[in-house]
Amino acid sequence: MASDRVVRPAPISGFPEWLPEVRRVEQSWLDRIRATYERYGFCSLETPSVEALEILQAKGETSQEVYTLSRLQAEAADADARLALHFDLTVPLARYVAQHFNDLVFPFKRYQMQRVWRGERPQEGRFREFTQCDIDVINVDHVPLSFDAELPRIVHEVLTELEVGGFSIGINNRKVLQGFYAGLGIADPLGVIRIADKLDKIGSDAVGKLLATELDLTSGQIDACLALAQIRGADAAVVDTVAGLGSSGALLDEGLTELAYVLGELADLPGGSVVADLSIARGLDYYTGTVYEGKLLDAPGFGSICSGGRYDNLAGEFIRRDLPGVGMSIGLSRLFAKFVNEGRFTEGPKSPTQVLVVVPSAERRPQALATAAALRARGLNVETYHEAAKIGNQIRYASRKLIPYVWFPPFDDDKPHEVKDMTSGEQIAGDPSTWQPA
Amino acid sequence: MASDRVVRPAPISGFPEWLPEVRRVEQSWLDRIRATYERYGFCSLETPSVEALEILQAKGETSQEVYTLSRLQAEAADADARLALHFDLTVPLARYVAQHFNDLVFPFKRYQMQRVWRGERPQEGRFREFTQCDIDVINVDHVPLSFDAELPRIVHEVLTELEVGGFSIGINNRKVLQGFYAGLGIADPLGVIRIADKLDKIGSDAVGKLLATELDLTSGQIDACLALAQIRGADAAVVDTVAGLGSSGALLDEGLTELAYVLGELADLPGGSVVADLSIARGLDYYTGTVYEGKLLDAPGFGSICSGGRYDNLAGEFIRRDLPGVGMSIGLSRLFAKFVNEGRFTEGPKSPTQVLVVVPSAERRPQALATAAALRARGLNVETYHEAAKIGNQIRYASRKLIPYVWFPPFDDDKPHEVKDMTSGEQIAGDPSTWQPA
Repeated sequence: MASDRVVRPAPISGFPEWLPEVRRVEQSWLDRIRATYERYGFCSLETPSVEALEILQAKGETSQEVYTLSRLQAEAADADARLALHFDLTVPLARYVAQHFNDLVFPFKRYQMQRVWRGERPQEGRFREFTQCDIDVINVDHVPLSFDAELPRIVHEVLTELEVGGFSIGINNRKVLQGFYAGLGIADPLGVIRIADKLDKIGSDAVGKLLATELDLTSGQIDACLALAQIRGADAAVVDTVAGLGSSGALLDEGLTELAYVLGELADLPGGSVVADLSIARGLDYYTGTVYEGKLLDAPGFGSICSGGRYDNLAGEFIRRDLPGVGMSIGLSRLFAKFVNEGRFTEGPKSPTQVLVVVPSAERRPQALATAAALRARGLNVETYHEAAKIGNQIRYASRKLIPYVWFPPFDDDKPHEVKDMTSGEQIAGDPSTWQPA
Repeated sequence: MASDRVVRPAPISGFPEWLPEVRRVEQSWLDRIRATYERYGFCSLETPSVEALEILQAKGETSQEVYTLSRLQAEAADADARLALHFDLTVPLARYVAQHFNDLVFPFKRYQMQRVWRGERPQEGRFREFTQCDIDVINVDHVPLSFDAELPRIVHEVLTELEVGGFSIGINNRKVLQGFYAGLGIADPLGVIRIADKLDKIGSDAVGKLLATELDLTSGQIDACLALAQIRGADAAVVDTVAGLGSSGALLDEGLTELAYVLGELADLPGGSVVADLSIARGLDYYTGTVYEGKLLDAPGFGSICSGGRYDNLAGEFIRRDLPGVGMSIGLSRLFAKFVNEGRFTEGPKSPTQVLVVVPSAERRPQALATAAALRARGLNVETYHEAAKIGNQIRYASRKLIPYVWFPPFDDDKPHEVKDMTSGEQIAGDPSTWQPA
């Protein structure tokens, strides 16, 4: 009996969930990402959703909104050390590598596909719980530059597999930016990076003004900085273009050499899918070399679909070792939700079932069960209809769930089994011990 | 450079995490559970980790310890509606079915493999974050009894696939218990169920005393209740045994008929793996018919490895429809951690890599990359060694990660490729476009 008091459930903004037909596609996306990451030998890692708050804040000024946990029934006397949900997978990786340092083989190549949480204000319409798919290489003391090329290659393969449409992974190098700015005589290159990172959002005029007012840059310096950010290119020719802008220095040269190397390693990928983009700054302080940012070609305003970069020392807050690394992250939930909102996945099957076995009558139910078992034994996903209902109702159930085949055990042992292809409508004889879906 | 201040990371009690070689096994467990659930046509579902607290508490007296969330940077003015992490997957299922009622096809058959959180005191050594693998059928108004048999069959298949060793899934029926107690003239049958649920923990003497002191049962009633709880059996013979204990009534008969039906449906499973166990009570008030509890035969004291039952109305707090269901849950983390603690999974491969391709020299690196790409194109998981190091170091890396094959591209294009089986030590010629692992 339905109870009298009803708490009507409502979606909580920022916490997406999907209908079964959409969840099925999400799962296939996760499977494909995992398979591609593993094809390059990266191991799976999962860490708890929860970290000590002091770990999450060890890097200092965390601008991320964090959710802390409280026990509903806690008494003041046994208050926990403060725990919080992780807001990304990079800090947990750093903590994990430091904690398990002696048990890992380096270079440590791992992927991690997990939910993260951000305590955003509900009204902002952003996700507060979402899945990221990260891939990183960490090593002791030194990470070969070849990984800076391997990671965008892997992510390129993932995005191609997911059929997200045209995309471009932009690559830049922080040494180029810092070296270029320093070569112009600018005192605070990191300050320029932080301001240049806003180019996409506020445009070049506004960035130019900020550079003048906040960092006292001359108009010549500003013009050069903005000209640098205009540069795009798929090959080492960008190096000459940068060199033509009148800055110079050892760090700039080093950055350009690295950038040219990474582009060269990726030269076999389809034209335009990986490009040098000198406007990419990635505001985070910890990037020190290569930086990445991927976009959809037909929705550049949608923002980054993957990003990452190289860091000199991932876990310096947690262990007295130098552990440089390079990593990329695919913002799965945001990307997936975009396609969901476009209505792409609403028409698919509502279950993994390949075959619905009809129960012809109560008496013939054992034969239906045996048929389903025979099909399952060969790895097929099979439902038996749950009662000896009218055949029309059983077929309608298959049709509503978009189950591709309906199996009819015979009413009589002398007759053959038949199987109906629900797409073509064709119905033919089938043997449960040999039949395969088309 | 390592920084001066180090926050030394420590495990947080109750939040397990695994080394890569153990995580690999955990992942294969999850894959196998998912594959088996899908083989029976159940669809995947994931819900947010977070629910409104009023949803989690809608069923009233929640004895579960719940973690609520607070935004670290929240101002009092924009305090969220209270959010909390789900403590099981049943309440989220109820909320989901009510919320998406019009978009689901019934009977709704779903599985859900997700983390849940319990705000236990840290010192208790229990998990505070763990993964459950639930499978449930929900229908409008009526759920055929055949599902009461299908679910333990599926879970039986899962546990067999996981090679957990000998196990037994015990089945009982709340109607049998309630009908039996009522037939003895006991005024509060549910009270007896709550006390009888403690049999495993406190023993029959203590249960007998509680029945006397708390419910005023006569010694004859107590003896009959305790005798009922002694009954085990793999087939309908238990019905006669129960009938011989001197209680009777329509509800008891109905329960015995259901129990006999479920046992009959499962009669083809290996002897002893599914048994009637009249001691199973499952304290939760919402079970109304079949109840389940699975145990490991060689570790009965370890407690239940799976459990569940039938409920008359799952979502009555959330929607004015009768939505009965039946479900089972595998406590994956607890079971898996048991085997981890026994040291079962510590010796396995540390990555999914099947082949490590050696980089013979800096000059031959392109050939190594091309070899790896050719192997990957055929679906193999392949790493290229990250630098042109000494061959011995490259082989040692493969050996430490337990990579089964090491591939040697030739130093010279005229020579053949060779591949070494790291287990047998055998090294033979191989063609990247055709070679397959043994």
